[in-house]
Amino acid sequence: MRISQLSAASGVPIPTIKYYMREGLLPAGEQTSATRAEYGESHVRRLRLIRALLEVGRLPIASIRQVIAAVDDESLSMHEVLGTAHYALAPAVESPTGDEDWRRARAEADDLITGLGWRIHPDAPTRDELAQVILTLDRLGMPATGESLRPYARTAVDLVEHEIGTIPPRGPREAAVEALVVGTVVHGRALDVLRRLAHESASARFFDVSEG
Amino acid sequence: MRISQLSAASGVPIPTIKYYMREGLLPAGEQTSATRAEYGESHVRRLRLIRALLEVGRLPIASIRQVIAAVDDESLSMHEVLGTAHYALAPAVESPTGDEDWRRARAEADDLITGLGWRIHPDAPTRDELAQVILTLDRLGMPATGESLRPYARTAVDLVEHEIGTIPPRGPREAAVEALVVGTVVHGRALDVLRRLAHESASARFFDVSEG
Repeated sequence: MRISQLSAASGVPIPTIKYYMREGLLPAGEQTSATRAEYGESHVRRLRLIRALLEVGRLPIASIRQVIAAVDDESLSMHEVLGTAHYALAPAVESPTGDEDWRRARAEADDLITGLGWRIHPDAPTRDELAQVILTLDRLGMPATGESLRPYARTAVDLVEHEIGTIPPRGPREAAVEALVVGTVVHGRALDVLRRLAHESASARFFDVSEG
Repeated sequence: MRISQLSAASGVPIPTIKYYMREGLLPAGEQTSATRAEYGESHVRRLRLIRALLEVGRLPIASIRQVIAAVDDESLSMHEVLGTAHYALAPAVESPTGDEDWRRARAEADDLITGLGWRIHPDAPTRDELAQVILTLDRLGMPATGESLRPYARTAVDLVEHEIGTIPPRGPREAAVEALVVGTVVHGRALDVLRRLAHESASARFFDVSEG
């Protein structure tokens, strides 16, 4: 298809398509003449993915480039490709300070993960993120142990069983990464807003407030 | 107590205390001489709250001022004070576009809330947030109905029952608002990181990846 058809099929304006090509996120089309290039379904798929990473994942261009590179790297397994996208979605973690409090929080995090029987890479940045949460709870006078975080862990397992089925493990990598991004980010937002609605309702019942 | 003791008791440096006073977040002490002012427990409580709103809630100064004003407004009930803090913590919602898609998403959101029996103010900005999530899911080809979001709603109810007990409903308002901020924000972060850990583990099991 021509670039105008690619634009129509993907919903992405032509100048934006050219921008993505300049940034190396989208491969060039096949040049069929000096002024014409042909695009295919793989371009449509790639554009869908870029839009999901940008608009849903709200990732910066540099992170998108990382994820695209992983998708294109045939030496990586699907699990490694999904892992790259997954870590790209994580918020930036404060660098571990390395002090005693940090080391203790990180040990708690590792123990909790092991105790739950979860298979997590030893260098996963998410371990540091969990340690940071534990440290923050401690500093606010709400010590977090494996026990206190267990309801949240159980919740997480239930939700993930529900979500993991939406990721197609075979077939085009773009589709799998897109499903992972959408699942993680949008369902995360759904859970967050529903939690806050549930809070408001519980408070209204407690204080016996009538609606409106 | 003198300002140096207030600083020691709260962990907030003296220049920062003076900054908060200039910003109107902290009342001045009682002037006992031209150069000396006395501070009390209420100042310590107020500083704890400001730190929680700033460091945990990561709220901008303008939002903190809103919350403090609500705490100080004796005409407001505790429920209304907590509500002000609660809404201040919500991410900024895109303004509703008012188009057909938006109206339909907002109707779905209202139906879900009603169907769950939740007591939510008709003007709660959280209703628009839920509509936004539903709209995003629809546009990504994953239509969200009351049914599909029900597991998330159930999860939210369970977690909130666990969290609402940490908010002291009587006594100093600062303590209640601080507990709400900490509960909402930090537990939200705990849940988010645990979800992502559970995702990684489920993926590792699916692809049968050994650790390390």
